[in-house]
Amino acid sequence: MHRNKEKPKAIDLSHHLSNVSKARKTSPLKGLQRYSGKEGVVQMAGGFPSPAYFPFSELSAEGLVPDSFPLSPTSSSTSAFSWLFRLFQGSKPPEKTTHLTIPKYPAAPNDLNLAASLQYGKPEPDSRIKRLALSLSESGFSTGMAKGVPQLQKILDELVGKVYKPAYEDSVILVHAGNTDGWFKCVQTFCNPGDGILVSEWTYPSAVATMVPYDIKPVPVPMDGLGMSSVGLRKVLEEWDGSVSGMPRPRVMYIVPIGQNPTGAPSTDEIGKTMGIERKQEIYNICVEFDVLIVEDDPYYFLQEAPYVPKSKRSAIARFNSDEEYLSHLVPSFLSIDYQGRVIRLDSFSKTITPGCRLGWFTCNSTFAERFERQGETTTQAPCGYGQSIVTALLLNWGYDGYIRWLRALASQYQLRRDFILDCLGDEFHLKLHYETSGVWSGCDIYRAYGKAPADVAFNEKLTTIKPMFSLVPPTSGMYIWASYLSASTCLQLHLDNHPSFDGNGETLEMQLWIDLAEAGVLFAPGWMFSAKEENTDVPGEGHFRISFSNADVSTPSSASPILDMKAPGWRSSKS
Amino acid sequence: MHRNKEKPKAIDLSHHLSNVSKARKTSPLKGLQRYSGKEGVVQMAGGFPSPAYFPFSELSAEGLVPDSFPLSPTSSSTSAFSWLFRLFQGSKPPEKTTHLTIPKYPAAPNDLNLAASLQYGKPEPDSRIKRLALSLSESGFSTGMAKGVPQLQKILDELVGKVYKPAYEDSVILVHAGNTDGWFKCVQTFCNPGDGILVSEWTYPSAVATMVPYDIKPVPVPMDGLGMSSVGLRKVLEEWDGSVSGMPRPRVMYIVPIGQNPTGAPSTDEIGKTMGIERKQEIYNICVEFDVLIVEDDPYYFLQEAPYVPKSKRSAIARFNSDEEYLSHLVPSFLSIDYQGRVIRLDSFSKTITPGCRLGWFTCNSTFAERFERQGETTTQAPCGYGQSIVTALLLNWGYDGYIRWLRALASQYQLRRDFILDCLGDEFHLKLHYETSGVWSGCDIYRAYGKAPADVAFNEKLTTIKPMFSLVPPTSGMYIWASYLSASTCLQLHLDNHPSFDGNGETLEMQLWIDLAEAGVLFAPGWMFSAKEENTDVPGEGHFRISFSNADVSTPSSASPILDMKAPGWRSSKS
Repeated sequence: MHRNKEKPKAIDLSHHLSNVSKARKTSPLKGLQRYSGKEGVVQMAGGFPSPAYFPFSELSAEGLVPDSFPLSPTSSSTSAFSWLFRLFQGSKPPEKTTHLTIPKYPAAPNDLNLAASLQYGKPEPDSRIKRLALSLSESGFSTGMAKGVPQLQKILDELVGKVYKPAYEDSVILVHAGNTDGWFKCVQTFCNPGDGILVSEWTYPSAVATMVPYDIKPVPVPMDGLGMSSVGLRKVLEEWDGSVSGMPRPRVMYIVPIGQNPTGAPSTDEIGKTMGIERKQEIYNICVEFDVLIVEDDPYYFLQEAPYVPKSKRSAIARFNSDEEYLSHLVPSFLSIDYQGRVIRLDSFSKTITPGCRLGWFTCNSTFAERFERQGETTTQAPCGYGQSIVTALLLNWGYDGYIRWLRALASQYQLRRDFILDCLGDEFHLKLHYETSGVWSGCDIYRAYGKAPADVAFNEKLTTIKPMFSLVPPTSGMYIWASYLSASTCLQLHLDNHPSFDGNGETLEMQLWIDLAEAGVLFAPGWMFSAKEENTDVPGEGHFRISFSNADVSTPSSASPILDMKAPGWRSSKS
Repeated sequence: MHRNKEKPKAIDLSHHLSNVSKARKTSPLKGLQRYSGKEGVVQMAGGFPSPAYFPFSELSAEGLVPDSFPLSPTSSSTSAFSWLFRLFQGSKPPEKTTHLTIPKYPAAPNDLNLAASLQYGKPEPDSRIKRLALSLSESGFSTGMAKGVPQLQKILDELVGKVYKPAYEDSVILVHAGNTDGWFKCVQTFCNPGDGILVSEWTYPSAVATMVPYDIKPVPVPMDGLGMSSVGLRKVLEEWDGSVSGMPRPRVMYIVPIGQNPTGAPSTDEIGKTMGIERKQEIYNICVEFDVLIVEDDPYYFLQEAPYVPKSKRSAIARFNSDEEYLSHLVPSFLSIDYQGRVIRLDSFSKTITPGCRLGWFTCNSTFAERFERQGETTTQAPCGYGQSIVTALLLNWGYDGYIRWLRALASQYQLRRDFILDCLGDEFHLKLHYETSGVWSGCDIYRAYGKAPADVAFNEKLTTIKPMFSLVPPTSGMYIWASYLSASTCLQLHLDNHPSFDGNGETLEMQLWIDLAEAGVLFAPGWMFSAKEENTDVPGEGHFRISFSNADVSTPSSASPILDMKAPGWRSSKS
């Protein structure tokens, strides 16, 4: 961990621990492990198989080199997107790789090795164990069964210290099995049945699905174009009336500040509007005032993108001149202003390495980390040793600088993908810039999409008689475009009536359109899934889709063009 | 799954679901994934990164060949244990390996590949998705986010079908992140706060640590030499009085039937006493009668060992002539008699491949599997894709027969290790055979250990005046020896009095001796940790250690011999 003796220490926030968390003891058998690190000890306590019986003598991987993706493809001499199209079209360019090897037994004591990383977790040798007085019943923070391999721990320490710069001195890093697991552990650690958790009014549905079965309810906070509204937050907390809500005032907040899931709310200051650190500071101050913990679920942190510029106005853009410039443009984490230790940050390798590694980490105060570790001992234990080994070998090979270079290219890739899908929409619809002074998207660059007029009708004539089919704000981070099909109810309803499979039952229009699109071969995410509200309080006929641009290939063997399909129902119906 | 249409289908046991489990909805976003399997679909719903951004073009491993370990080392022409000593002494014999490769993209559609296995879980293509009427809100059992890679699923289907032979037709296999995770999911799925769970009076402490924070208490059931007593079980259930215990009658049992943790209770019928299938049948019938679910936590299943024969009487033993003979001698799983679907079997690769893979699986009825999968979606998701890929590649290479060959050798290895440690005890102590007609070890081969007499005292004379220092029953499975130091209180107390660090406080004698041993360089597991009883009802002065023979190397660089250390305190003290 990046230590700075001038920073304050975390304050005592242990009153936030749930009854379940407080009741966790050190798993008694695991407590023994503190003795295992002692040199020369004969381990006949735990059921650790001998590494001789591990059926692998070596793992290896062909890892991509950090500069596998160009940073500024628009500077290419041919078409700006030619290489991107090649990628989309499935002709994989030869990958430049480096050979990574993890032997079973280490050549030097600190080498990454399978004998250690495929074993149950073990603590590092610790001179304290020499004290005979150290009782097993003394609960400490170093049993090791739920910790990561030490080499990875070191890498994460460096990354967090250099990039997030926690504002208090004694923050702790602890691995988890991905942010879904991390969030589950937070819910169990901080909330009792009957509690509520503050969330943005549009939020990640799995985060809500994690809490609800435990009788913990989402408490929606209004949003604006920058994400969660600090004004809205204050209002919710100040006006909280437990007798009305049947819940104590929430003590925990769940927030996806970057690449807000699902809306992809803007979060960089390059378009003059900042979620940025000012908004975060406002939210943080309110949380200090009302004693609220902030769980910052931030898997898209490194995927912050430059603002969208329509194709017609776009010229070659080299986004950043250096890794330092890239890093300096990333909106700081809540950690950077957290002088009390009330932020629990969840990081994940799912979007930056692979989802399948099920590997991420908490950064939080040591009291909470100790409780998370205890919980880990009776649930996940440490994350998978194979994933840890291979990811660690890659990061050791890349080094900190190499990883930042990889992330910078990845952000650039997602920017290209975003531009590509928005350009496609621009080709199929009339996208008209629009601004609003209130509501979720106030102050944003809103594009309203109108169907293109048939050749025999002048566009302007058409425009005066039709309503926009949908609206969107180009995201500046993450993987998602949030499209709102405002006031399109007539069109959609009419279309559904004509659909051969329409059975007139109570499915929402949104869902029917979604199924129609799915049937046509395009999967969007229906917006209702992301609503944190218990009842649908939207304007009737208003609906949303979340469109992910992280994965789809242009060359997918569907004969139908997704864009055309998306347009067709609305346009057809607007004529009838 | 091994299907047999003559078997009955699982009965409806959904009344056992906990309130938390019943409240779990299909994670709404995950419900979308059923459409993803459709050919040609353009996936713009989930945040799946493109595999182009996975920073590996290939994973590979040097996997040991299935016959890496001999099956019958005692038939060696030199010393029976010479090769074992070579292993213990750290001179690693050259390993015969086979090269395993997992490419990023599959060459043939069903090939194991990183693009799929390092992605978030995906369902297999399913013709049902063609039905437009399939509503997203319809909860089904095929969303895929918490499922394993299909190739592994196939392997597990074959293994479970051939080895465990479930007695009902519609059993389901679902991967989990190791048995600790599997057991946690069971606790959450079946128990409400205030419930109790039936466990053996000596049990795995982490299993208890998992339930207690949720206000779910262990209900100890008496044991005999075969493990959980069916007579004791009936008594507990029949005489249950909720007004006394403050709990409803338990509906769930946790049991480690093979290599019982910690006692290593005998479980094969080769010594005339059977836990075997008869005891299991008795327990199962009682569970049917009282409507109790059985969670069979069975990581040691394949490590069943032949009975211990003292070194002096032992000749070369070739245990089994074939894999078939080996398999036929394994005590059948509870699954083999479960005609109702009330057994939830937990299997793990931790003891047979590596602990670090955090990979295992449930075998259970489809109702429970569906609930486990829902829980997985908001906690672990699928097990790590790296671990799954590499283990799957190994098992595909070995095939079913190769894996059985590996397991057979592993059982043989643990038998050798058990014999080695018991032989060492036999060298240092007088081990006298003893039988009891009642109590935990009735009918077992009990070895009572007496200190060897100094040269100037006849052993028989000494024997009449001293009490045994400890007793043990050689285990016939698993990794553990359970040593009881009956009636040794005088010796131990005296020893502790003489210890320079003894401070006279209330630590139990057991713990003090444990710390003393740890200080001398040997780690056993203290017995009290494994007690399921809330209060210590043992005979005063009676204590236990669990001694694991899975890991320790003779060549560990401790100058002290663990065996001598273990003897020293007791012997010294018996003289004073």
